[in-house]
Amino acid sequence: MIRASERAMGIEYAIRDVVLPARELEKKGVKVIRLNIGDPGKYDFQPPKHMRDAYCRAIQEGHNYYGPSEGLPEMREAVVQREREKNGVDITADDVRVTAAVTEALQLIFGSLLNPGDNILVPSPSYPPYVGLVKFYAAEPREYLTVEENGWQPDVDDMRKRIDERTKAIALINPNNPTGALYEKKTIKEILDLAGEYGLPVISDEIYDLMTYAGKHVSPGSLTKDVPVIVMNGMSKVYFATGWRLGYFYYVDPENKLEEVREAIDKMARIRICPSTPAQFAAIAGLTGSMDYLEDYMAKLKERRDYIYKRLQEIPGISTTKPQGAFYIFPRIEERSKWKNDKEFVLDALHEAHVLFVHGSGFGKAGEWHFRIVFLPPVEVLEEAMNNFETFMKKRLAE
Amino acid sequence: MIRASERAMGIEYAIRDVVLPARELEKKGVKVIRLNIGDPGKYDFQPPKHMRDAYCRAIQEGHNYYGPSEGLPEMREAVVQREREKNGVDITADDVRVTAAVTEALQLIFGSLLNPGDNILVPSPSYPPYVGLVKFYAAEPREYLTVEENGWQPDVDDMRKRIDERTKAIALINPNNPTGALYEKKTIKEILDLAGEYGLPVISDEIYDLMTYAGKHVSPGSLTKDVPVIVMNGMSKVYFATGWRLGYFYYVDPENKLEEVREAIDKMARIRICPSTPAQFAAIAGLTGSMDYLEDYMAKLKERRDYIYKRLQEIPGISTTKPQGAFYIFPRIEERSKWKNDKEFVLDALHEAHVLFVHGSGFGKAGEWHFRIVFLPPVEVLEEAMNNFETFMKKRLAE
Repeated sequence: MIRASERAMGIEYAIRDVVLPARELEKKGVKVIRLNIGDPGKYDFQPPKHMRDAYCRAIQEGHNYYGPSEGLPEMREAVVQREREKNGVDITADDVRVTAAVTEALQLIFGSLLNPGDNILVPSPSYPPYVGLVKFYAAEPREYLTVEENGWQPDVDDMRKRIDERTKAIALINPNNPTGALYEKKTIKEILDLAGEYGLPVISDEIYDLMTYAGKHVSPGSLTKDVPVIVMNGMSKVYFATGWRLGYFYYVDPENKLEEVREAIDKMARIRICPSTPAQFAAIAGLTGSMDYLEDYMAKLKERRDYIYKRLQEIPGISTTKPQGAFYIFPRIEERSKWKNDKEFVLDALHEAHVLFVHGSGFGKAGEWHFRIVFLPPVEVLEEAMNNFETFMKKRLAE
Repeated sequence: MIRASERAMGIEYAIRDVVLPARELEKKGVKVIRLNIGDPGKYDFQPPKHMRDAYCRAIQEGHNYYGPSEGLPEMREAVVQREREKNGVDITADDVRVTAAVTEALQLIFGSLLNPGDNILVPSPSYPPYVGLVKFYAAEPREYLTVEENGWQPDVDDMRKRIDERTKAIALINPNNPTGALYEKKTIKEILDLAGEYGLPVISDEIYDLMTYAGKHVSPGSLTKDVPVIVMNGMSKVYFATGWRLGYFYYVDPENKLEEVREAIDKMARIRICPSTPAQFAAIAGLTGSMDYLEDYMAKLKERRDYIYKRLQEIPGISTTKPQGAFYIFPRIEERSKWKNDKEFVLDALHEAHVLFVHGSGFGKAGEWHFRIVFLPPVEVLEEAMNNFETFMKKRLAE
């Protein structure tokens, strides 16, 4: 047998790893309610019409060629406008790069920043590709705590303790996947101060930036003075176009400390040629067009969040923090005597209640004894899922 | 300044690296005839209407969600049909993976196969991402010779000499970029025998498979008995949809020797979520639909190849092998006293004749003192380019 590389064999991706046992069950004819993948397009959400129309127009008008590696100038300009308005950042199109969604942004940024043995601070719990991709590049993802009792805000003191001479950056995911936390301005300022003290760049994942329920999202890009910030965003969540695989990132770097990293990223970007050309025309329409659709969509999401939060509050054996952004809720398993760990819990719920969650440990150490639920489906679906889950929990707790 | 990683800083990509000096010139108002990038979409070629329509239908009908990491089942089934017909391979949809073009296939395959210090045999000259990506993974691209005097066929004896205990695979690009060579069946059989002898898989890049001028393309996938073959292909060339960034690969591996590599590839694929969903609907239409459009397109390409070949034959100081496939021609610089190397030659031609070629050394050692011309543009454009180039050569040779 031909052996595979260690770097690839070491990758874990919890969110999709639980899909295989669910598929097995479905093959036997069982209806599984899947609440594992954060994909609005699977439910009653679609990218707005002006984006879909612009995409099709681009295809039919012949914009099917290779674009520049760094993205179409028009798309980069649209990002500048959008981000100036949202974050008040002082950037130009030269600071923007277009990618195949945030995933590719992470590939480029981590691949360009991390030598083997370096480390990067990532939140715990955290979206799995952060851990997976850092390891893929033979570097170490150092998980800093986010504190459940404090609405899953990052613990800046814990962050500080984990920095050493091989630390290359601090990564933030805000609003957070999987916790739904929205970070406070004060916390972000503290993180910027810490980063400045150690000469580190901050990498800010803002893919859920306009998906908040009460507070407003604050970007480190809008607060930085001299600390370099790389902001990542894209079409997958706020624009409801997950399957288009298009995103972007930009540098807020007033002192040009990232000059060499930018060069390295551009080298990596050239070798993969370019992002999708017609999809960029759709993105331009989205970035420059009306955001009115978001109001309806957020009203629906808020209803679903409120519903699932209420139901989870009433289910014994678990406790729940109310999400402030995104479309995830991350309950804690309080009753631990019935299962070996959170993965066993999730598989038990799958086989018994036919609902598919993701085990919290798949999101890092601080995710242990938690599970993530995606609350995108309509209330009727959530209701059925919660009914099944409640019955399951009551039965287990009575055993 | 924050330092970048060695792996990323080491990347060279000749094809796009020459774009910067061309841009400088264009900024000064000079009209440059760019014959550097193999992009049919920049000229009078478009993906066929049934593909464009299927793409738009998918977008408007709501296929904008995340698909499976390995690709939509329908697309993988369409690949099976297409490849059974073209190559007579005995595969199922389980053997097929969908990617963001061949570039991503290379990322996945090399990333899953190569540990640091491993090596892989790549053709010389070769499409630059082969060299670049292998180095990116801290492995060594070992260039095997292809012989200009023999129509740029691979030299199997040279291949054999380069194999050692750290060799992980043999890569073929056929029809070849940059030489336009079409490999003989006999050569492919010899390569399969060699691979079998050393227990190596063959990686076969067939992106130009139906773009041949006289002979027919033969795939190692169609000839193998027990040697594992990974065939890569996609929508960028034969389907004229470069900017859509969609491709695929499949395993022909009767003895399942790639079991572990397949697992590693799937792990890598999961972490990047999935390829574009609506683009896959376009690909399905392309893979299962009529190929009639190709006849017209190939007639145009043949006219352009014949024209540029004839013109280059008449220009002093160079010699040229006639391409049998793809849309590249790779002349040899015979008069070498006027320039330090082929890169200087190409930059001189850019600044003096305002035509942009790519220097042959950018394609590896065997490419030195050559240059690549893309002959996609209409004859009028090629005529102007060749007129300028001829004047330039005559002037230089008289100096």
